[in-house]
Amino acid sequence: MSTLFLRTLREDPADAEVASHKLLVRAGYIRRAAPGIYTWLPLGLKVLAKVEAVVREEMDAAGGQEVHFPALLPKEPYEASGRWSDYGPNIFRLQDRKGGDYLLAPTHEEMFTLLVKDLYSSYKDLPLTIYQIQTKYRDEARPRAGLLRGREFIMKDSYSFDVSDEGLDASYAAQRAAYIRIFDRLGLNYVIVSAMSGAMGGSKSEEFLSPTPIGEDTYVRSPGGYAANIEAVSTPVPPAIDWADAPAAHVEDTPDTPTIDTLVAVANERFPRPDRAWTAADTLKNVVLAVTAPTGERSLLVVGLPGDRDADMTRLEAALSPSQVEAANEDDFKAHPQLVKGYIGPGALGPQAGEDGIRYLLDPRIVPGTRWITGADQHGRHVFELTAGRDFTANGTIEAATVREGDPAPDGSGPLELARGVEIGHIFQLGRKYAGALGLQVLDENGKQVTVTMGSYGIGVTRALALLAENNNDELGLKWPIQVAPYQVHLVATGRDESVFEAASSLATQLEDAGVEVCYDDRPKVSPGVKFKDAELIGAPFILVVGRGLETGEVELKTRATGASENLPLADAVAEVARRVSDALAG
Amino acid sequence: MSTLFLRTLREDPADAEVASHKLLVRAGYIRRAAPGIYTWLPLGLKVLAKVEAVVREEMDAAGGQEVHFPALLPKEPYEASGRWSDYGPNIFRLQDRKGGDYLLAPTHEEMFTLLVKDLYSSYKDLPLTIYQIQTKYRDEARPRAGLLRGREFIMKDSYSFDVSDEGLDASYAAQRAAYIRIFDRLGLNYVIVSAMSGAMGGSKSEEFLSPTPIGEDTYVRSPGGYAANIEAVSTPVPPAIDWADAPAAHVEDTPDTPTIDTLVAVANERFPRPDRAWTAADTLKNVVLAVTAPTGERSLLVVGLPGDRDADMTRLEAALSPSQVEAANEDDFKAHPQLVKGYIGPGALGPQAGEDGIRYLLDPRIVPGTRWITGADQHGRHVFELTAGRDFTANGTIEAATVREGDPAPDGSGPLELARGVEIGHIFQLGRKYAGALGLQVLDENGKQVTVTMGSYGIGVTRALALLAENNNDELGLKWPIQVAPYQVHLVATGRDESVFEAASSLATQLEDAGVEVCYDDRPKVSPGVKFKDAELIGAPFILVVGRGLETGEVELKTRATGASENLPLADAVAEVARRVSDALAG
Repeated sequence: MSTLFLRTLREDPADAEVASHKLLVRAGYIRRAAPGIYTWLPLGLKVLAKVEAVVREEMDAAGGQEVHFPALLPKEPYEASGRWSDYGPNIFRLQDRKGGDYLLAPTHEEMFTLLVKDLYSSYKDLPLTIYQIQTKYRDEARPRAGLLRGREFIMKDSYSFDVSDEGLDASYAAQRAAYIRIFDRLGLNYVIVSAMSGAMGGSKSEEFLSPTPIGEDTYVRSPGGYAANIEAVSTPVPPAIDWADAPAAHVEDTPDTPTIDTLVAVANERFPRPDRAWTAADTLKNVVLAVTAPTGERSLLVVGLPGDRDADMTRLEAALSPSQVEAANEDDFKAHPQLVKGYIGPGALGPQAGEDGIRYLLDPRIVPGTRWITGADQHGRHVFELTAGRDFTANGTIEAATVREGDPAPDGSGPLELARGVEIGHIFQLGRKYAGALGLQVLDENGKQVTVTMGSYGIGVTRALALLAENNNDELGLKWPIQVAPYQVHLVATGRDESVFEAASSLATQLEDAGVEVCYDDRPKVSPGVKFKDAELIGAPFILVVGRGLETGEVELKTRATGASENLPLADAVAEVARRVSDALAG
Repeated sequence: MSTLFLRTLREDPADAEVASHKLLVRAGYIRRAAPGIYTWLPLGLKVLAKVEAVVREEMDAAGGQEVHFPALLPKEPYEASGRWSDYGPNIFRLQDRKGGDYLLAPTHEEMFTLLVKDLYSSYKDLPLTIYQIQTKYRDEARPRAGLLRGREFIMKDSYSFDVSDEGLDASYAAQRAAYIRIFDRLGLNYVIVSAMSGAMGGSKSEEFLSPTPIGEDTYVRSPGGYAANIEAVSTPVPPAIDWADAPAAHVEDTPDTPTIDTLVAVANERFPRPDRAWTAADTLKNVVLAVTAPTGERSLLVVGLPGDRDADMTRLEAALSPSQVEAANEDDFKAHPQLVKGYIGPGALGPQAGEDGIRYLLDPRIVPGTRWITGADQHGRHVFELTAGRDFTANGTIEAATVREGDPAPDGSGPLELARGVEIGHIFQLGRKYAGALGLQVLDENGKQVTVTMGSYGIGVTRALALLAENNNDELGLKWPIQVAPYQVHLVATGRDESVFEAASSLATQLEDAGVEVCYDDRPKVSPGVKFKDAELIGAPFILVVGRGLETGEVELKTRATGASENLPLADAVAEVARRVSDALAG
């Protein structure tokens, strides 16, 4: 510790909100270089190397072969796949001195695809799984939470290449199993949820989420085992209702009802229903959005939702990706006078509005025969008993409504509960999207050219490290799982007695000879209090204290995770500590 | 080999000129992604990992502590040091989505300096040496020779921080010793030459050059032990000559003498000297150059050289760095009519030309009293006996002339010989340049703020790998030193006999159990000829062949480096091969 390049801090960094960010900076693991861009200090690099080693071992064990792509790449492959534009402002773009367009790769689907195309040509060459552990770049709009959402970060990404769908299933299963082993070995909590694959295309898709209240991702679970990312939750579609006996729609004056709440109140006051009170769920809310395609083209979209639900921007973005979506602005409304703010109804929208119809998508619950109070497209007027299928239709459905605690799981496995997590892994079946776009074909057994099918598998390596810190800490500092701790034992010599430092130094040497990784705090003029605080902040799993006890031939062993403390005879200390470390490593 | 992600090529890549480039691509180590930007295939990554491990071990052994900086960095620190502009078009620049200026770091002096400033504040914290092994970027005008001059490449860079000059000397010596160990362990030939530190500033500077005829760097050596990069060669300055008895200068008609050769011929014909013939060395050649400062400002510079020497652009660039230099163009001559092409003399230049004087620098040999034939600033006329010091002066001297085989070493250690090499390491004393510019100070023993002094030490990791390939190959392929070979033994099973494959497979397992790294060519339907060609191309140090000899209980062991071949009893093969590998590793 007297020479270690480290300076622990007593104060949280000003920009840090989450525990992992605060503690990794305070304990001297990382240091901010720019928003979302970090420098790794010696302690941080040690942890990172251990996390990477676990990932590498399991990838190799699963038959993956390691390669390494450049981070700086020419535009062309990304243009061929469409991602040069799809990624919008989320990638870093640059030009070289000759004016050639380049990007800092956010992921490498195109390069993996082209490399295999370059080298392989026959079904006999497959299956193949190749991977890399590599620095990636994303120009995040809001880098935050330290390593959890950075702009320069490390990912492990692997890709599988198969001739057949069955082959892809097998490759996918092998990677899935490897992911389970990796996160188990790292000691990371996780849930596996169904997911959408977003801008990367593809079909079957699962995320490994680490549950934490600070997570940006919301996911759902049911008692029956359904689990999905909020973007992937599909709404069970109720059966259509026969509208033969439904009353005719009627327009009513509803002055001063620009909101759902005011509308429900007026409806109950002036047009009460006999059986029960009107609720927000009886109203049809039409939300006006502006959608910007990757080409830059901007158009309006109206989403119809039951009035008791809001539009969930995350779900909307996923449903509309790679287009960007935002609320419509005043100019949009001016340009479309048929949209009467606060009183918008299906009449001005979609098919029934003819050529003027703005694109109109409905929540899947709004099935034929359902009856609604909704805008009459005139200021201060609403229409009642407007019946889907009979009185209006839309251009389709969209998963845009908020998901609520207690909503039914789409597979009938019970009510959903919501939780938050951070994505640490994502596996999905890309299928033939990239191979098709980039012409990756091989000869099959019959000598016919067939397009290869691919799987894509990512782990956020630096993010996983941050989550380990996020999930393993207390008010004193970090509490690393031993598998990834920078050191297994933090050895503290206290006091000013020369014999203490001699004994501690000898212990450090003996422990290292026994294969134990030791951080020895040999600082001569630092108080025991400061040394303990540093040890607890840094968070090695075992803290071994050599101090006054030496007079009676004893040292103190503390277990950081539990706070337990015990005295050991000095003579047994090396063997005992080595045994504890070895037991802990064995799990 | 049946599953290894590899496809060897029989043809050299079209863009490859040097052996390492050709062979690393053909043998499946790397693959081009863009000009000067390469993808690493499994074999290449294995070699790279071994090279990095040697570098890391020796850095750690020398007391270095590993850190890791981002590649994507904000402009500000580089602006503070002046390098944002000094680097000109040689760095990749980009903007993030908010318009912030960033660069892809070519080196990290500023970041190292700021990190230490951030964490340390006392002389007690020093000395410190920290290093990283990291991907770097340079927007080379002419990326070439595969990994030898790339745009994305891996470097090890370390920096030392000391309070005193003596401390810096000690840190420098420790790194120098570590570099010697690293290159010795890697089996790389090298010479250590004096160097200039170029755009990075600083004083004492040495390069580790690996001698090779394809090298871009020229260096010199003397029998007495002087060795320097061509840029760093200083010209011994002859003593000034008394001009008391020198004849007066006289202008003569010398029609049609726009070149030195024509001038010498005319001089000898029309104005012969009594003692000997005029030679080019008697003439003073004035070379007109245009210099562009980092600010973009362009100005003319004339360099006066003995007519038997040319301007060496490499030495000129080094002498004028960070400005860029090129030959003056027609527009420059038009803008300066006092420059009479082919007949330029000192009269139009420097101090004697008064306000019109273009900046004029002389070769150090042109000392006071030397007498010259040179341009008279009139078409078809030259001046004879123009005497330096008496008839003209300059604004200073410059090391711009070509260095020639046989020139005297500046330290008097004999005639120089020239050779070519590639820079694989560069160590130099930065001194206080960056610490001063960025305010890195610590409190000294007396409680006074002092500026830290730094050393900078770089190794081109990917370039060292390429040189190992460049220096170790023959017409059949690569011949790796065992320390960095992707595999120690390439095991080839030949024929179609099942028993051969069984024996080979068993040998592979036993060798791996004995700690030997084996690449087993188990491909069932590939001819022995193809397998041998692949083995020789890939270049593992030992090739073990299991084939027909099996009938008599023998296998064949070939040594790739020597081509030697011998038969071994199958029963002894594992032990014998393991012993050979172990002996080879021990050197």
